[in-house]
Amino acid sequence: MTSYELLRRYPFFGPLTENQLKAIAMIAEEKTFPKDTYLLKENTAANKLWLLVEGDMDLIYSGGGEGAVANILVGSIAPGEVLGVSSMIEPYKFISTARSTTPIKVIEIDANALRALMEVDCRLGYTLMRNIAQAVLERLKYTQVELAAARA
Amino acid sequence: MTSYELLRRYPFFGPLTENQLKAIAMIAEEKTFPKDTYLLKENTAANKLWLLVEGDMDLIYSGGGEGAVANILVGSIAPGEVLGVSSMIEPYKFISTARSTTPIKVIEIDANALRALMEVDCRLGYTLMRNIAQAVLERLKYTQVELAAARA
Repeated sequence: MTSYELLRRYPFFGPLTENQLKAIAMIAEEKTFPKDTYLLKENTAANKLWLLVEGDMDLIYSGGGEGAVANILVGSIAPGEVLGVSSMIEPYKFISTARSTTPIKVIEIDANALRALMEVDCRLGYTLMRNIAQAVLERLKYTQVELAAARA
Repeated sequence: MTSYELLRRYPFFGPLTENQLKAIAMIAEEKTFPKDTYLLKENTAANKLWLLVEGDMDLIYSGGGEGAVANILVGSIAPGEVLGVSSMIEPYKFISTARSTTPIKVIEIDANALRALMEVDCRLGYTLMRNIAQAVLERLKYTQVELAAARA
């Protein structure tokens, strides 16, 4: 459990009500991990959502076992950004691997419990899903620009 | 206006109720466009959402005026997929350009009206936003794989 005062500092949780933030705080925990931690791995079940509080992470695409490419950098996560958005979107599998490039501090949220909250409170569901879609779209925009640069 | 029977054929509109589908049908139109139509342009205001019914489209990143890269293919849209997801996500600006590579048939939805429906019916808002997030995540996954291949 963490405090709703901590959550309310982050734009990702805006504009939620105090009661909604308190419910999320009950299923969230603050955690720290050393440099070079693999917080999530491509193609594994996605059951946690993180908000990066401190530190930096790389997103890596491993090649999915096809052997054609391996461990290529495809993005990064900065403080204030969410990580593990696949835990909120079917089929709930991570699409890449995330490794910390510094010691990190995160807020870790139980994704199953969060999805349950979103199901019973559709106003919360709509607001958070909008924020998640925005986070994914920003990442898509960045990745398209990088792809265009790599192909130019 | 189009028919809700048409909309219900597409997984993107599932699982909506008959009343929700009828409301969306009232703000949607079927349209056809020739090959080489630019349906949306990068960095312009996003106020329409399309579902591609027939044909194919390329997604192109123009370089955003920076001059470093220009008109690079960064993705494609196949029948059954949505186009213009930026019309549902702040800041409501298209992040790339879409050009038809064949004659196309689309269902065109007034995005402002759809956002208004989602605002008053948060169950509709939650369901559709989840489908939109899923569409964006699939595109991100594809783009990350392409980026990894281009960098390998």
